[in-house]
Amino acid sequence: MHTETKIIGRYIGKFGELWTQSLTDLVKEGVAGVLADSELDPAEIDAIFVANKAGGSFNEQRHLGALVSEQFAHFPPAMRVEGACASGGLAVIAAEQAIRSGLYQTVLVLGVEKMTDVSSSETSTILATAASRDKEYGSTFPALYAVLANYHIKRYGTTREQLSSVVVKNHHHAMTNPAAQFHKEFTLDQVGSSVMVADPLRLLDCSPITDGVAAVILSSKPSSRKTKLLGFGHAQDTLALQDRQDLGELAATRIAASKALKMAKLRQKDIQAAEVHDCFSIAEILATEDLGFFAKGEAASAIAAGQATYGGQVIINPSGGLKACGHPVGATGVKQVSFLSAMIEAGQIERGLTHNVGGSGATAVVNVLGI
Amino acid sequence: MHTETKIIGRYIGKFGELWTQSLTDLVKEGVAGVLADSELDPAEIDAIFVANKAGGSFNEQRHLGALVSEQFAHFPPAMRVEGACASGGLAVIAAEQAIRSGLYQTVLVLGVEKMTDVSSSETSTILATAASRDKEYGSTFPALYAVLANYHIKRYGTTREQLSSVVVKNHHHAMTNPAAQFHKEFTLDQVGSSVMVADPLRLLDCSPITDGVAAVILSSKPSSRKTKLLGFGHAQDTLALQDRQDLGELAATRIAASKALKMAKLRQKDIQAAEVHDCFSIAEILATEDLGFFAKGEAASAIAAGQATYGGQVIINPSGGLKACGHPVGATGVKQVSFLSAMIEAGQIERGLTHNVGGSGATAVVNVLGI
Repeated sequence: MHTETKIIGRYIGKFGELWTQSLTDLVKEGVAGVLADSELDPAEIDAIFVANKAGGSFNEQRHLGALVSEQFAHFPPAMRVEGACASGGLAVIAAEQAIRSGLYQTVLVLGVEKMTDVSSSETSTILATAASRDKEYGSTFPALYAVLANYHIKRYGTTREQLSSVVVKNHHHAMTNPAAQFHKEFTLDQVGSSVMVADPLRLLDCSPITDGVAAVILSSKPSSRKTKLLGFGHAQDTLALQDRQDLGELAATRIAASKALKMAKLRQKDIQAAEVHDCFSIAEILATEDLGFFAKGEAASAIAAGQATYGGQVIINPSGGLKACGHPVGATGVKQVSFLSAMIEAGQIERGLTHNVGGSGATAVVNVLGI
Repeated sequence: MHTETKIIGRYIGKFGELWTQSLTDLVKEGVAGVLADSELDPAEIDAIFVANKAGGSFNEQRHLGALVSEQFAHFPPAMRVEGACASGGLAVIAAEQAIRSGLYQTVLVLGVEKMTDVSSSETSTILATAASRDKEYGSTFPALYAVLANYHIKRYGTTREQLSSVVVKNHHHAMTNPAAQFHKEFTLDQVGSSVMVADPLRLLDCSPITDGVAAVILSSKPSSRKTKLLGFGHAQDTLALQDRQDLGELAATRIAASKALKMAKLRQKDIQAAEVHDCFSIAEILATEDLGFFAKGEAASAIAAGQATYGGQVIINPSGGLKACGHPVGATGVKQVSFLSAMIEAGQIERGLTHNVGGSGATAVVNVLGI
């Protein structure tokens, strides 16, 4: 009978353009790293869930479950879980469902993406195929999020400076995260004058292309670790923006958060830090509103006023987020859980929330962690 | 508290080269077909698991969970599960784990692959990336299974005529399956004189490239349907053949079968029909040995002697198998479950087993069905 699941191991490899490491190298690093942190005997891993978006296209490897399993002498059963850029968050949910099924006690979740083996143009095309092929063919993600940004600006008066404040904050947070892709601060003016990508989104509004691996071990066995998985939520919306009810929100985020917090028996005010899916500056503004941290239309000014950092209402993206820690797609949702688990184990926070999005909001996953 | 899971809906679309249907068309057909069979209100679907190997590369669609979810007005949570050619069998296991977790009662599993949108050469390359990139780069699957065939021939004296007998049997079985890609019988001589692909495997030893969709609905709710999911097993092995302990078997099949039959509290002799992963003629010989239906080295002669068809020891691949029913990769494992469920509902058998393999045996999944 399942009582509680704890995060008993965690690892985040250095994120960046890892030219000297292959996909297999990243897998090996992630497995070794999370096992070392957990101090488990490898034979205690009962099953494996691998999060990866497009290892087939990026790296010509389309059997990643088996590749991770063969790092173990006892070949634990493994499957890959994919929900576009939300693959990491989904893999954590799939692992928790497997534990709650009673079949497994200790499960490895490994998220990995090696994106720099192809050109930036190819990467952009591969990422864009998480949108609706039938209705948005050829759109890149900056273009889709630019639609959302323009709508938000028009409806709520969101300003260029407020968008920039998200970026400045997240790059500042990344300065103390050794795994982050970027250790470089920017001013509001630098963000606002960076090259235009898809109006109004400029280069520094966009998360980068990143290689990286992150892993956590979930277990229902007794452990001295503090971090429990208190709740999770998973919701969907239409693939295409044109089919949405309201472009002022990502409804799937709102529903996933509601499910996860209900399961955790917590409310937004109980959450001290959140890793949210800031693939673009506007995405963090939408996320913090849709997660319920700020009222609709008020997140941009709250973030600009310092309410989303240390000393404010809630610490948003203490890792630096996708924007400054980097966004190795399949690894991102796993990194979010790993990072907040580290903050909990270190006594910095007692309760945190992760938020991982696939497509332009067609999949949303929220996981709630706490002591 | 989970007591039993039943297959309360099933659908197999026509397999073949479906030039007039897109990936989205196949998804819509599968959803409509399985809902019609189940007579469920669509709102009763609590969650969705999608099996697909390479929709990103075949069809430029890398967010299939969301694509299936948006066919429903209530957008059930959806995730894609991938384990190369074993994706379908794995999705059934993931769905069962989700039901046993207590989170969901009624879950749709949809397997789909639209392979003919790219050239045969590209398809072959995409499929081959389920092998070990580091150790078998450039090998096609016919080449890898040719290694296994040559080993089996050398060690057990397996003959050309015995390999052909698998093909003749499965094409004969497909004659009565309206969904099958091929309705064409072959003689032993025709198989044995077809063009060589990878010695000793000839064209007619190989399963085809296929478009198709299959779906089942699993539910823990009471139902008048008869078919229960009695057990499941999932095991892994090394990606590369060169790392295997013994080329005379697929060890993952043996282990997965042992787990599944133990969970079902059944033995091989209790199974009346099995859908096994005959991606090549030699694969059915290995499968029926490793599943324990025939002793090692004895399957080839048993199949040639009629022990694997109606009136024999066990009916192997009544659908025609991958060989003659066709092999739309992500759909195959779901089709296996759907087909045997239909046989059980029709009273033709009481207990059946499905066997789905990824790569050249790196992933194996066995599901056991029965009344």
